[in-house]
Amino acid sequence: MSRWKIYTPDGVQDILFDECYVKREIEKRIRNTFRSYGYYEIETPTIEFFDVFSSEIEHFPQESMVKFFDQKGRILVLRPDITVPVARITATKNRDVQLPIKYSYIGNVFRFNEVGGGRQNEFTQAGVEMLGDSSSESDAEIIAMAINTLKAAGLKEFKIEIGQVEFFKGLAEEAGFSSEDIDAISKQIDKKDLVGVEEILNRYEISARLKQLILKLTGLFGLADVIQEFKNSSINERSLKAIENIEEVVSILSDYGLSEYVSIDLGMLKSLNYDTGITFRGFTNGVGFPILSGGRYDNLTSSFGKECPATGFSVRINMLMTAMENSGITFERPSVDSLICYEKTNRKRAIEIAEALRKQDMKIETFVLTENIDQGKKYASSKTIGGIIYIGENDKITVYDMINDTKEETSFNALLNIG
Amino acid sequence: MSRWKIYTPDGVQDILFDECYVKREIEKRIRNTFRSYGYYEIETPTIEFFDVFSSEIEHFPQESMVKFFDQKGRILVLRPDITVPVARITATKNRDVQLPIKYSYIGNVFRFNEVGGGRQNEFTQAGVEMLGDSSSESDAEIIAMAINTLKAAGLKEFKIEIGQVEFFKGLAEEAGFSSEDIDAISKQIDKKDLVGVEEILNRYEISARLKQLILKLTGLFGLADVIQEFKNSSINERSLKAIENIEEVVSILSDYGLSEYVSIDLGMLKSLNYDTGITFRGFTNGVGFPILSGGRYDNLTSSFGKECPATGFSVRINMLMTAMENSGITFERPSVDSLICYEKTNRKRAIEIAEALRKQDMKIETFVLTENIDQGKKYASSKTIGGIIYIGENDKITVYDMINDTKEETSFNALLNIG
Repeated sequence: MSRWKIYTPDGVQDILFDECYVKREIEKRIRNTFRSYGYYEIETPTIEFFDVFSSEIEHFPQESMVKFFDQKGRILVLRPDITVPVARITATKNRDVQLPIKYSYIGNVFRFNEVGGGRQNEFTQAGVEMLGDSSSESDAEIIAMAINTLKAAGLKEFKIEIGQVEFFKGLAEEAGFSSEDIDAISKQIDKKDLVGVEEILNRYEISARLKQLILKLTGLFGLADVIQEFKNSSINERSLKAIENIEEVVSILSDYGLSEYVSIDLGMLKSLNYDTGITFRGFTNGVGFPILSGGRYDNLTSSFGKECPATGFSVRINMLMTAMENSGITFERPSVDSLICYEKTNRKRAIEIAEALRKQDMKIETFVLTENIDQGKKYASSKTIGGIIYIGENDKITVYDMINDTKEETSFNALLNIG
Repeated sequence: MSRWKIYTPDGVQDILFDECYVKREIEKRIRNTFRSYGYYEIETPTIEFFDVFSSEIEHFPQESMVKFFDQKGRILVLRPDITVPVARITATKNRDVQLPIKYSYIGNVFRFNEVGGGRQNEFTQAGVEMLGDSSSESDAEIIAMAINTLKAAGLKEFKIEIGQVEFFKGLAEEAGFSSEDIDAISKQIDKKDLVGVEEILNRYEISARLKQLILKLTGLFGLADVIQEFKNSSINERSLKAIENIEEVVSILSDYGLSEYVSIDLGMLKSLNYDTGITFRGFTNGVGFPILSGGRYDNLTSSFGKECPATGFSVRINMLMTAMENSGITFERPSVDSLICYEKTNRKRAIEIAEALRKQDMKIETFVLTENIDQGKKYASSKTIGGIIYIGENDKITVYDMINDTKEETSFNALLNIG
């Protein structure tokens, strides 16, 4: 046998019965949450032209994308996310739809190079996007949905950190940083690397107040107090507007009754070219990476030929499942209600009963006996099926309770709750 | 803008709101059907090693598979089906699980070269596999599930054609065909090419009776009559056993009450090396290709190092959707129950009401008015939202019925059905 026949590639996985059942249940809860806010689902292709993602090279480095050629030699990619395809659709097929448009999706995305720490090359993202609304209300709605999505999925302990990249962009403008230094310093702030930030700052002649403010971005977290402190010291129109936006978003989230889940981190500066306002990430115990991320990306659709404000979030289902498992949150397991056992001569009756019970929303397996009922008992106990229905001659029906090890006779009508 | 930025690759598609809603509904119905028979779902990776599919080159020609390299230079493919991965899992991770094992799946598969006639390079397959049971009962259960799956999805008019490749293999053995000729003649029989079949037959010295029987495979369809005719004239043990198997399967399907959907075609000879017994395909009006296919493939798991009989089927969801649309079968559309409109000053109350109604399983959007209620009405009618709830000062709540163009005042408690 060839060497790689029985293995799966790096960073992908088989999801077997129990785990898959939990995944479907979580997906169902998330889908219902999305629908309750009027965000209906779309499905985009797994395969896109490379060009669709080529403007977002900061966000999706070329080497992280799974690439290959189509039969005409054009470069294809396995989608690294679903936000960019949603922008493509908004700028093309949904160009003339009344704004705002509210999308949701649950689908698999692909990235090379992320293996390690529970990250996967293929994983399922569930997310929403609101296109065509730049209000703080839309920012807040997306964050509220992110929180309610995690709650609906069953996660109990988590935190959403909210940033606003325009605040830093305002300070950077004021300081007159070169674009290289904006890039470098934002990465260092994001990593909370105080020393690295200071090193660059020392190369510029800026006021002590501005310097202090930028350094503070690496370390100051909280809620109302943080907002107030930054607001008092905000240095120009751009950074003031950013603070007012985040202040309003936090206030709306308080109207949602969700303040307990939220904290502020104005040093969250992941993708400065992609992000254009509020950004946020969700964390939970025992998972080293954000289980969800989101924010505003008002420039994305313009690369597809349509100006349109946009905000959204996505949650990593596989990571969410790990987080819930680590927290001891349990789910129902896939189960079969009864195993119907019969000898061939009573097949017609056995099938009739099996089909009738399935129509009553029961999960039923059937089993042909060639020797005796012990064959069925063995199979039932190996699959933890709790009950056996034995169909004998002349409609003699015996029900075995596998858990209490008892049996009793019953009739066709009683079994099907008829008459 | 680059040339390919706004397009999707050949043979893949965006599935937007209405269509995606129908797809999810169909998938839900199919999943429930699978579960009712005790076939629980698994998820296999989109990406597999090429080697996993390399033994099934007749079934999946190399040029039909989407291939690329991983970062170590190994050849990967986008899975062309999910049956082969299920065989891989059965022979490896589920090696010691009590047989039979019953699997189901709903996932996307990928094939180059199938564009045209409604075929797609990426499409969704839903299917089941039973591993470890070689009985006619298991053949029949899989066909019964296929029929009940189409019925549950909502399709009304369709036909399942059942074949049994061992019957032809028996005749070919008797005739002493070379393996090249077995290949050629089986393809011609499958295409109902009587002349082509005759041409090859003339090269062999075989009895007139055997010749007649092989020629008959191109044209004789039906049910009990066909079985009887072939049974009476079956020529050796192998072909007789095949006929007895199909006879028993048809008889069991009659016990299921599903005879009306079934017909026999012993000339169905698609993949002789892959298929090892019963094969079947489902057809419906207005779709030129089978919407489902299935059958027995007892040799597949042995290429992964485990001998294990196997049978299953898969249905193409996208094609099923097309078929249902063509037959005028309609589905509920995604809808929003109410649009809650408010001025900023009444935001807290508006959000409170929106969240409370969502918890009551309603679909609710919110809308901030900057001028007057007409803004909300315009948005609601563009999205065919049937009702508006306007939250005014001092909890003055007005409900607008957009369909009958009426309005009435209500209270907070009445709206939420409290007290």
